[in-house]
Amino acid sequence: MSTKHLSVGSQVPPLVPGKLRLYSMRFCPFAQRVHLVLDAKKIPYDVVYVNLTHKPEWLVEKNPLSKVPLLELKEGNILYESLIIVDYLDEAYPEHRLYPKDPLLKAQEKLLIERFGAIIVLMNKVYYTPTMEREQFVEILNGLEIFDRELVRRGTPFFGGKQPGMVDLMIWPWCERADLIRILRGDQFVLPRERILRLLEWRSAMKEDEAVKGSYLDGETHAKFIRSRQAGSAQYDFLIAQ
Amino acid sequence: MSTKHLSVGSQVPPLVPGKLRLYSMRFCPFAQRVHLVLDAKKIPYDVVYVNLTHKPEWLVEKNPLSKVPLLELKEGNILYESLIIVDYLDEAYPEHRLYPKDPLLKAQEKLLIERFGAIIVLMNKVYYTPTMEREQFVEILNGLEIFDRELVRRGTPFFGGKQPGMVDLMIWPWCERADLIRILRGDQFVLPRERILRLLEWRSAMKEDEAVKGSYLDGETHAKFIRSRQAGSAQYDFLIAQ
Repeated sequence: MSTKHLSVGSQVPPLVPGKLRLYSMRFCPFAQRVHLVLDAKKIPYDVVYVNLTHKPEWLVEKNPLSKVPLLELKEGNILYESLIIVDYLDEAYPEHRLYPKDPLLKAQEKLLIERFGAIIVLMNKVYYTPTMEREQFVEILNGLEIFDRELVRRGTPFFGGKQPGMVDLMIWPWCERADLIRILRGDQFVLPRERILRLLEWRSAMKEDEAVKGSYLDGETHAKFIRSRQAGSAQYDFLIAQ
Repeated sequence: MSTKHLSVGSQVPPLVPGKLRLYSMRFCPFAQRVHLVLDAKKIPYDVVYVNLTHKPEWLVEKNPLSKVPLLELKEGNILYESLIIVDYLDEAYPEHRLYPKDPLLKAQEKLLIERFGAIIVLMNKVYYTPTMEREQFVEILNGLEIFDRELVRRGTPFFGGKQPGMVDLMIWPWCERADLIRILRGDQFVLPRERILRLLEWRSAMKEDEAVKGSYLDGETHAKFIRSRQAGSAQYDFLIAQ
């Protein structure tokens, strides 16, 4: 399914006619956001995975910021920034809308996604620094509780209603990785079920969604990548059969 | 024109029928973004200015994050985050569109606004820390040059074409304040005309725009507020005749 992450000295594969091209990294949660939206909307695309430690020269040529996710359109136009890309996709491919059509409801969903940003910052600290304070864990839990309450308030299986919508997909990559806190920092950091019961039910339901299955990896696999990166030599390709 | 900034113990004025309500602070560049869009689109609104040092209790009730800009809609719904508010306004009030209608062109404008974020971070450091390194100034100038080049590339008086569009309005508050670098940090930090000639022409043209005039303040006035805040007692109301 995956292909090798391309590195310095590589050649960029030619675009595939009729498909969008996503430059991605298999373990990047921001890139995963774009995979999720493309998969949920069933938009045809192909993927080029990129080694972010030894970036190919052509990546810098395509975008001076040389970030992933990077979306290349048929016309050779380039978009980056996960939230800008998914906004574009939802507008340019209006079938199976992920944002509500009503401008106010849409803005409220964006605020919720924006609010999740604080949790992203906290979780990144857990994953990419070697120690963790109890206080950080409490802050993450308080943040997740806001989303648990919001699900209770909405009374629907997903934030998007009966099906996952943009909020579900945009917060998913970090929820998929939430067990990393325990795996990387120890059993004293198990998320207490009773505090975020609805959110954990939601997480189970999300794992059954077809779009989510398309990019899903379990906590141990994510941990393996993070540990390799922390050890100074990120293993991008360990999922690919040799 | 302005009214006093409301503080702890104040009562919130009743909403005005048929008008949006903007909670703002006279010297806040993010709040100014929303003023600019409301003014450019000629959307009826009234303003309640808020003292951010001694926030009114009702502000926290309206929004747990108690930030400005805060937009209150007729239905009592609340929006915050300047870019989410202006997105909403441009969709909900489609007359005199500020973003291009085409999803790709719109996404490209958003990327340009996002890119200006780096300049905002750099400029905030200049305004709110007492010293400035030459290196910071060079970085700001490099950032502004990107926007100068983009204007040259477009060959139009404004980023939005013949009239200011969303990019123009979103970057304007920090361009209005650009002289602060010199005013606060000294004559060695004059922006060199030859490096950003088109951008400075653009700035002159922007000052003549009606929407821009609605919230415009000169550099000395901005400096007076910042100095009062640095001295530990922000003077929110010095523009109001006693």
